[in-house]
Amino acid sequence: MDAVGTPGPAAPRRGEPGWIMWGETAEQPEVLRRVLEQGAPAIRETARAIAARRPRFVLLSARGTSDHAALYAKYLIEVELGLPCGLTSMSTTTAYGAEPRLRDVLVVTVSQSGGSPDLAASTRAAREAGAVTLAVTNNPDSPLAEVAEFHLDLLAGAEKALPATKTYTAELLALYLFVAGLKEGEDPAAAGQAVSAAQALPDLAARVLGRGEEVRQLAGRYRFAERMVVTSRGYGYPTAKEAALKLMETSYIPALAYSGADLLHGPLAMVDNVSPVIAVVTEGRGGQALQPVLDRLRGRRADLVVVGPRAQVAAASAGFALPEGRLPEALQPVLEILPLQKLAWEVAIARAQDPDAPRALAKVTETR
Amino acid sequence: MDAVGTPGPAAPRRGEPGWIMWGETAEQPEVLRRVLEQGAPAIRETARAIAARRPRFVLLSARGTSDHAALYAKYLIEVELGLPCGLTSMSTTTAYGAEPRLRDVLVVTVSQSGGSPDLAASTRAAREAGAVTLAVTNNPDSPLAEVAEFHLDLLAGAEKALPATKTYTAELLALYLFVAGLKEGEDPAAAGQAVSAAQALPDLAARVLGRGEEVRQLAGRYRFAERMVVTSRGYGYPTAKEAALKLMETSYIPALAYSGADLLHGPLAMVDNVSPVIAVVTEGRGGQALQPVLDRLRGRRADLVVVGPRAQVAAASAGFALPEGRLPEALQPVLEILPLQKLAWEVAIARAQDPDAPRALAKVTETR
Repeated sequence: MDAVGTPGPAAPRRGEPGWIMWGETAEQPEVLRRVLEQGAPAIRETARAIAARRPRFVLLSARGTSDHAALYAKYLIEVELGLPCGLTSMSTTTAYGAEPRLRDVLVVTVSQSGGSPDLAASTRAAREAGAVTLAVTNNPDSPLAEVAEFHLDLLAGAEKALPATKTYTAELLALYLFVAGLKEGEDPAAAGQAVSAAQALPDLAARVLGRGEEVRQLAGRYRFAERMVVTSRGYGYPTAKEAALKLMETSYIPALAYSGADLLHGPLAMVDNVSPVIAVVTEGRGGQALQPVLDRLRGRRADLVVVGPRAQVAAASAGFALPEGRLPEALQPVLEILPLQKLAWEVAIARAQDPDAPRALAKVTETR
Repeated sequence: MDAVGTPGPAAPRRGEPGWIMWGETAEQPEVLRRVLEQGAPAIRETARAIAARRPRFVLLSARGTSDHAALYAKYLIEVELGLPCGLTSMSTTTAYGAEPRLRDVLVVTVSQSGGSPDLAASTRAAREAGAVTLAVTNNPDSPLAEVAEFHLDLLAGAEKALPATKTYTAELLALYLFVAGLKEGEDPAAAGQAVSAAQALPDLAARVLGRGEEVRQLAGRYRFAERMVVTSRGYGYPTAKEAALKLMETSYIPALAYSGADLLHGPLAMVDNVSPVIAVVTEGRGGQALQPVLDRLRGRRADLVVVGPRAQVAAASAGFALPEGRLPEALQPVLEILPLQKLAWEVAIARAQDPDAPRALAKVTETR
């Protein structure tokens, strides 16, 4: 079922709906390899310089897809570094003129384009307030990259489809390597292991992306769905949020993402046999913590699709089995999102939408 | 249209569907008065004791409705106190065993029941890690209240309907008074003004709740809605999230909440004339920052219902006008949610659901 090289559905031809997103999705193994080979030295050097400033608190700022990468970084920073961490509410600075006291604070701003004025403005304000500022973008010449003290370049090449794909996984990997770099001073062995573990990613990503036919079969299930719920816990939760966004912006299906714990708090009322659920089950503690939620969903006879370990897929209505035993839990999000990006693409095409150009959206969002 | 004492729809009789939520919604003016009169002195004293510990960062933990109160507090803390602030990801502690370094950190945990084991566990861990811990609950005998160093009692009386109403507005007001108390040492005049401004709330809340017939008319619009979007910016954003949750847990309508800025990043693709939008427009900078989003929505001919100033309601498809010129923007969320709680109730009843007892939910969620 997950043999390497299963022939995928024929790729769209140039100019056909979705051909740009298709191509950018397929580039991901190569982009991950570029981050590991060309990007890693600069990321490590930046991390060392920032570690020397001894930040005690981390704030992350982002919007849209990049906000999910920021959430992923928040888990990493809390778990791996033990630093308290928050996602910023940018409007407190840009609309309310808040003047936060940012001594000892590292402010990380993540943005594919680096072009949103509000992100550049809040990063400038943070720098003026004494924060160490780091921008993570796919454009070193962007306003955001220029205004921040430090910058990580995603090296993903221009991203032209409106739904972000390759810049998302590049953000995840760059942030992972950055956190490993921050850890190097206090635990060089753990940091070295963390970096080594990532070397398997490009090949694993290529294998997962090669299983397009499986995704196409899954997509049939959602062609007529009027709403969806995506859930996970721990490291898989950013994947759930990103998958929901991808489904919404390509297929216009209202897809709601909840952590498993939040799901039990209210939205579960909305789940029944007409609200299919996608669960992202990591191999590790997040997946274990999700188990009671999966049991509740099965008890409600929800239509449950699992992206995760084979045994979990077998116990669900359907799913996509991910390679096991190959990656630490913290790296699994880089793989988990791949079948879900392809699922969003397939569902959009099945519903006669063009995933490259969702109606009403602009690639750089000019909110202030 | 918003005359005081407009006769509302007849209340449900005891035992009829929704009678408990109806009653608890109606209690809110009285609960707010209780917080102001009986709760305020203890809140002020707690704030003074915590201010003396000079926290430099604040972390907030909560789930469900209380998470929206925590998000409100995050805006207050960033804007009014200039302290960097984050919402915690509890699973980093409970699932991954993260050991955050919490010196100089105030950890605020908000929970109606105080009974969720994960909240008590994460608060205990925070206290052991050196944080100043504050629990905000409606039950001073709860495990959470006992494990935290400090406690604010919401004084709301037992809440029996599954959708939280009176404990939400009590949380907002208690957190508002707490932040005013934290500010007192450095700016006693501003703190005093903040507390004075809140005295108008009980009467204003009674006026808004008295306009049930207007809400009932609005509810007709959503009886057959298959999905909804709720948006806002700044102080109104927690209201948008809470309104979406109320609609979901009572009526099972997939209701997606987005900050106006995030809406433009992807979910806007999903908004068209079959996805009605509710916009919460504060009177102040958040409402101003939302203006470009409202213009985009009107440009897309979205069905737009505004809860906010009369002029904004007049420019929308429909709405509910809130009293103007009476409250600082930071207090408006306490009023804004009231018509939306009633809207959720009315839509649920119109759809023959029982808002008191959403299927599948328990009042205390036992996630770990």
